[in-house]
Amino acid sequence: MVLAVTDLASRLHHPLPSLTPAPKTLGDIAGLRAAGVRAGIKASGNPDVALLVADAPIDVAAVFTQNKFAAAPVLVCREHLAKTGGRARAIVVNSGNANACTGDEGLQNARTMCADVAALVGCPVEEVLVASTGVIGVPLPMEKVRAGIRAAFEALAAGPEAGRAFLAAIQTTDAYPKEAATLGDGWSVAGVCKGAGMIAPNMATMLAFVATDAPVDPGALTPLLRRVATGSFNAVHVDSHPSTNDSLFLLATRRGPQAPAFDSALEATCKRLAWLIARDGEGATKVTTIRVTGAASDEAAQAIARRVAESALVRTALFGNDPNWGRFVSQVGNARDCGSVAGLVCKLQGITVFEKDAPTAFDRAAASRAMAAEDVLLELHLTEGAGSGVVLTSDLGYRYVEVNAEYTT
Amino acid sequence: MVLAVTDLASRLHHPLPSLTPAPKTLGDIAGLRAAGVRAGIKASGNPDVALLVADAPIDVAAVFTQNKFAAAPVLVCREHLAKTGGRARAIVVNSGNANACTGDEGLQNARTMCADVAALVGCPVEEVLVASTGVIGVPLPMEKVRAGIRAAFEALAAGPEAGRAFLAAIQTTDAYPKEAATLGDGWSVAGVCKGAGMIAPNMATMLAFVATDAPVDPGALTPLLRRVATGSFNAVHVDSHPSTNDSLFLLATRRGPQAPAFDSALEATCKRLAWLIARDGEGATKVTTIRVTGAASDEAAQAIARRVAESALVRTALFGNDPNWGRFVSQVGNARDCGSVAGLVCKLQGITVFEKDAPTAFDRAAASRAMAAEDVLLELHLTEGAGSGVVLTSDLGYRYVEVNAEYTT
Repeated sequence: MVLAVTDLASRLHHPLPSLTPAPKTLGDIAGLRAAGVRAGIKASGNPDVALLVADAPIDVAAVFTQNKFAAAPVLVCREHLAKTGGRARAIVVNSGNANACTGDEGLQNARTMCADVAALVGCPVEEVLVASTGVIGVPLPMEKVRAGIRAAFEALAAGPEAGRAFLAAIQTTDAYPKEAATLGDGWSVAGVCKGAGMIAPNMATMLAFVATDAPVDPGALTPLLRRVATGSFNAVHVDSHPSTNDSLFLLATRRGPQAPAFDSALEATCKRLAWLIARDGEGATKVTTIRVTGAASDEAAQAIARRVAESALVRTALFGNDPNWGRFVSQVGNARDCGSVAGLVCKLQGITVFEKDAPTAFDRAAASRAMAAEDVLLELHLTEGAGSGVVLTSDLGYRYVEVNAEYTT
Repeated sequence: MVLAVTDLASRLHHPLPSLTPAPKTLGDIAGLRAAGVRAGIKASGNPDVALLVADAPIDVAAVFTQNKFAAAPVLVCREHLAKTGGRARAIVVNSGNANACTGDEGLQNARTMCADVAALVGCPVEEVLVASTGVIGVPLPMEKVRAGIRAAFEALAAGPEAGRAFLAAIQTTDAYPKEAATLGDGWSVAGVCKGAGMIAPNMATMLAFVATDAPVDPGALTPLLRRVATGSFNAVHVDSHPSTNDSLFLLATRRGPQAPAFDSALEATCKRLAWLIARDGEGATKVTTIRVTGAASDEAAQAIARRVAESALVRTALFGNDPNWGRFVSQVGNARDCGSVAGLVCKLQGITVFEKDAPTAFDRAAASRAMAAEDVLLELHLTEGAGSGVVLTSDLGYRYVEVNAEYTT
């Protein structure tokens, strides 16, 4: 049961997923320009100010953190979107500092960022949105931020190369860049995001920016984004700890032709981005999709899936490729939203490991081998109704403890 | 940030708390006899059948798991207590097999255990209660169990030595025996328990047995036990994963003199037992008491404390002695039962690290040193009302991952 030290050390390696660059990024969407620059907010000297500007006001929908400690940029975005009714010209982002738990000064700084961009672009301040990610409780170094905003605005002219830099400038502890795109017939959906669990003091936020040139109905944008977020970004579970800054923006420039397949393209793009976040949970070796069906409602199904993902026993079993059905099914019984576990069926990678109130005579070694994959599917079928839901979770290994216990001490 | 392998290895040691034996145990309570024997259920050959018998029917209160996968012994206990209205002559316990997820055969086996004891003691079968802990999904080896019950009944006559064996026979993965007692003026409260997180397939249950000879009002027993459990056993958090078999029994033989301080004696005994369970969370190096005050209600306060304890980021920070206020306060903002975080104050070992919506200028090194204790106090003061609640949590370290990822593969 006790690992040799050499075995342990080998587990510290953080394998990365194999990635192919997305065919398009934000700056490639008709009507949008993007840029990212080094402003010196990050001690590492990596890019840390990003800017996205539309040629004219466009439709924007957004989903923000539900954390009651919402950071200053989230508060300012909510205010601006309420005023414009969902229109914007620009989004400014900084990494290296979350501008969270920074009081009135933080709110003022978020407003200044918007005002600076509004002056450069030539638009009302409420048409500028803002997002921040990085350390919390520290005031933004505003001279650097404002110089960065000016530099980013100038870099917008540089074209596609500058557009790629947007992604670099929003990252913090990410192990790899996260981007996805879906190409339609003359239109596209392109998105980038950042996030890899919430490491404090670098409280790594989930920030996502998705844009399309498809002519989407403005009134449909917000309900669509909420629905898509439920099955993608809001389905990601790394450490039971949503951050103060989580923000997802959807921008529609309405330049392309009719796009009947837009909804599913948006869904596919967001799901890929969400997968990339779950895969980058510290020390994660895989992404496990926990799919609950047969619950009383869709909401109940997702709550049950989340409860299963929250168990450290479940997540260490996933790390260890352990087909430990007892942990999975018993955690369903702990979910507040589960009324009855009678008739529960549990499948691991398609292998039925529990049904008719008892474990099956499955091949443990084969199930363990099947779990040693980059994508693992854990299915839990209830008999309470037609509700279904999904959560994507990272597994819990040694490196998670290492990164999170040793970070600041 | 990356630990040397030698540092990592040194963290694998599981330090134990310093324990002194309790002055009394179950078998020392007037009117009770206890025993524990080796029946061969455990492959290790350690004691695995325990029996507690009262000289006459006595008052019993009990609190069971809320998991919908309640195990067969829990179902039988609920049935028997409903029939007797809270009276019993005996409790039979086995370790090494939880008799959970075992279907109708499991229910029948739990009934047989009660019937065997009833025949030996000479009482109605509903006056016998039963508890099991160990692997799940495997039928009980009934020949061994029944022979063990006969041997345990004979051992009752052996006196105090046999009484101590009760505790040994209920343990599974426990790193040390867990017992506590409070002595009154001519009466006592004595308790034993087992539990150290939920390791499957050894789904280590929390089982606790507390007895007193104080003349307690029978009608007051159940509400009192529920109240005490809230602040003790139900406040323990190891891995967000309550088991299928959790059971707490309180037995009152009513042999002693008046006991005005009984309530607080029961509370002290249960709190000590609960502390011992939290301290034995796999890989735990300390017990952290998360105390929430100023919440809308006591229930809300405990729910918020539980939400904080559920965060792997919080628990790794505790392991790393990291005074990472951002993790603690932001998780309060994630709690469904928290209405507002305005005015939140966070204290670590008495050091105020966050107030007035911002971190204080506290000495990080001093705070980290203060966290390197066996008992850590994390206080979170809200301004919503007068509700207060407490959760005891273990920290999350390398050995937790090791034990739980490597257990069966």
